[in-house]
Amino acid sequence: MSGDRIIAGIQKSPAYQSAVQSLDRDHDRFVNEIVALTEIPAPPFGEEKRGLAWRALLAGSGLTDIETDAEGNVMGLRRGTGAPGGKLVVISAHLDTVFPAGVDVKVKRQGTRLSAPGIGDDSRGLAALLAYARALDAGQVETKSDILFVATVGEEGPGDLRGMRYFFTKGPYRNRVAAFFSLDGIDPSRVTNGAVGSKRYRVTFKGPGGHSFGAFGIVNPMVAMSKAVTDLYEVVPPTNPKTTFAAAVTGGGTSVNSIPDSAYMEFDMRSESAVELAGLEKRFLAIIDKAVAGENAARSTRAGSITADKKQIGDRPAGMTAAHADIVTLTAAAAKAQGYRPQFNASSTDANMPISLGIPAVTIGSGGRGDRAHAPDEFIDVEKGESVKGLTVGLLALIATANAQP
Amino acid sequence: MSGDRIIAGIQKSPAYQSAVQSLDRDHDRFVNEIVALTEIPAPPFGEEKRGLAWRALLAGSGLTDIETDAEGNVMGLRRGTGAPGGKLVVISAHLDTVFPAGVDVKVKRQGTRLSAPGIGDDSRGLAALLAYARALDAGQVETKSDILFVATVGEEGPGDLRGMRYFFTKGPYRNRVAAFFSLDGIDPSRVTNGAVGSKRYRVTFKGPGGHSFGAFGIVNPMVAMSKAVTDLYEVVPPTNPKTTFAAAVTGGGTSVNSIPDSAYMEFDMRSESAVELAGLEKRFLAIIDKAVAGENAARSTRAGSITADKKQIGDRPAGMTAAHADIVTLTAAAAKAQGYRPQFNASSTDANMPISLGIPAVTIGSGGRGDRAHAPDEFIDVEKGESVKGLTVGLLALIATANAQP
Repeated sequence: MSGDRIIAGIQKSPAYQSAVQSLDRDHDRFVNEIVALTEIPAPPFGEEKRGLAWRALLAGSGLTDIETDAEGNVMGLRRGTGAPGGKLVVISAHLDTVFPAGVDVKVKRQGTRLSAPGIGDDSRGLAALLAYARALDAGQVETKSDILFVATVGEEGPGDLRGMRYFFTKGPYRNRVAAFFSLDGIDPSRVTNGAVGSKRYRVTFKGPGGHSFGAFGIVNPMVAMSKAVTDLYEVVPPTNPKTTFAAAVTGGGTSVNSIPDSAYMEFDMRSESAVELAGLEKRFLAIIDKAVAGENAARSTRAGSITADKKQIGDRPAGMTAAHADIVTLTAAAAKAQGYRPQFNASSTDANMPISLGIPAVTIGSGGRGDRAHAPDEFIDVEKGESVKGLTVGLLALIATANAQP
Repeated sequence: MSGDRIIAGIQKSPAYQSAVQSLDRDHDRFVNEIVALTEIPAPPFGEEKRGLAWRALLAGSGLTDIETDAEGNVMGLRRGTGAPGGKLVVISAHLDTVFPAGVDVKVKRQGTRLSAPGIGDDSRGLAALLAYARALDAGQVETKSDILFVATVGEEGPGDLRGMRYFFTKGPYRNRVAAFFSLDGIDPSRVTNGAVGSKRYRVTFKGPGGHSFGAFGIVNPMVAMSKAVTDLYEVVPPTNPKTTFAAAVTGGGTSVNSIPDSAYMEFDMRSESAVELAGLEKRFLAIIDKAVAGENAARSTRAGSITADKKQIGDRPAGMTAAHADIVTLTAAAAKAQGYRPQFNASSTDANMPISLGIPAVTIGSGGRGDRAHAPDEFIDVEKGESVKGLTVGLLALIATANAQP
């Protein structure tokens, strides 16, 4: 049966219609929970309080097995009609924001427009999980698979997917996931089935340093660094799967009188393909070593040699959920059923982790309007009609996927 | 007549011997003036108060035509036996220190050891000028040429020789200087007849910047900068006259997620030869332009092109006073006569300016012992025997040079 027909079938069911009525009836509460969650700061590595609040809000949603794992992910289970302990579908949103501690997170309201750092990315997603759980409960919607609702930690940059890394390598559900939704941001037409992987390094080049006139002729770490940059930029990566690199941040030296004893460069490498990313990383590391050796050969090491400390500061796996996978076709059909044109793309989200493990996963939006994610003036609009319509995309896709499992 | 015989002749003269007795008798006052001058902060561009104090201390030294020029150099004239307005000999020391405002300049005494920032570089030189003027006056020493005593501004790094640049381009004595002494630091064996010139640039490379994945393929200012560094380091400068360059300080970029929109590098170039320095500078500037053009050709400029802002942040002229010039042979003879082995070398001091104009000039020390110039724990030892012996080197060289002018 086509995705469109499956979705249409769900839409006609009284249980689903009852669930949507719950979303509609419950909308003020949903908005209040968005505000409450947003106003609890959740910087990278500081998600605990927001996690506790989200866990408290699960009360009355009908979920069982509520727990917080060792990494800080908070989760609750909704049983399906299958045998206990079988494959399940995860739907998640992330607790952390990009904003450091101390940023004002008070929500400003102007009619249906709510503005605050992190409100769309990803407080609305967290609140949507709560609304979905209550709606499914209210509608007594049955699914074949269990559904696990998870509020994750460490999705944003510095967190480096630590929440999902733990969940899929050490967590109790690590071998039970049949499909995975990440509810991230708001765009309800989003069907992100590509996981852009990234490798990030901070490379610190060190040498003896010395007086720029008196010690002239000795090795200079900035020359090794520069050679690494120019050699990296000779690499021509594939455009499909899209693969990129960047020399992004640099610093070093103390005085124009001196040959520096240290300089660093932060490099970013990304790819839609894990194979391409691994190949690029290998080449990059060889380029660094060659640049260091070249500088040590080109100038005097009488006062000391150049070394490079290659510190990995980011590692997100790449991959792709096939366009014909159930979760992709059902999500696209759900979006279309609500009048949205599905946008297939690749990004870097919590879904990177399951995708890299071959588990079908997509990242979708929680609906409504808004903009300025990652900026202090981030906002969403919770006008009820658009807001509920957007929410139903995820709900339809979730029910359909939880029924699609064998 | 050889330099040694000229110096020996001066040493035998009653007038000179009387002048040395004055230096000896006056030594406590000399030390007190070192302390007083040191304890007046004189950071680059903040020499005015120390200049006023030095000017006040000239009272009773027999100098005339005392004035402070528009740049801040303070000076007084000692007439010779020649006609007024003729060629003259300058002896100078510098008012400024490398230390910024706010550094504690209180002098700590331990016996004959005096410690404070700037005390040897160049408070002792400033006090030596005062002691010389009084000693010449006390001994009624006659010289053929006039002698101009100058306390200069802007000798240290950021000052970029602004005092001497003004003196030799706009000052009232600019066309009258036959020979020039810079009394800088303490080493009494120093005969610095080479002027190491320098050219310093801060080059800021700018481009459009963008998301490291989404905007991949656009030009990156760090690549242009890196190419400039690697190309510069392909240059093989002469070892004699010694010519050097350095990529010294760098910074740029804001986030490992982003292609940077800006990066800068500070470069230092030096040479004992003005011709070599000019050639290196020209080549350097061409390397920058080529690196920028190369990056604009290598990657997309759809969002904007790379530009380079080449800001000169230092310019000190190079040159050499010939080893057979009177001022060099007489200074070397004076040092030898006092038991020091003359050390000919090249440096960057106030003497760079006259040397670059073809005016015979040397930089010498004011005597005594000490160390740690440019460091907060700088110190001198004013043990009287060594201190006065060191002072006499400059006095002998000054008298001999002021008598050597035709």
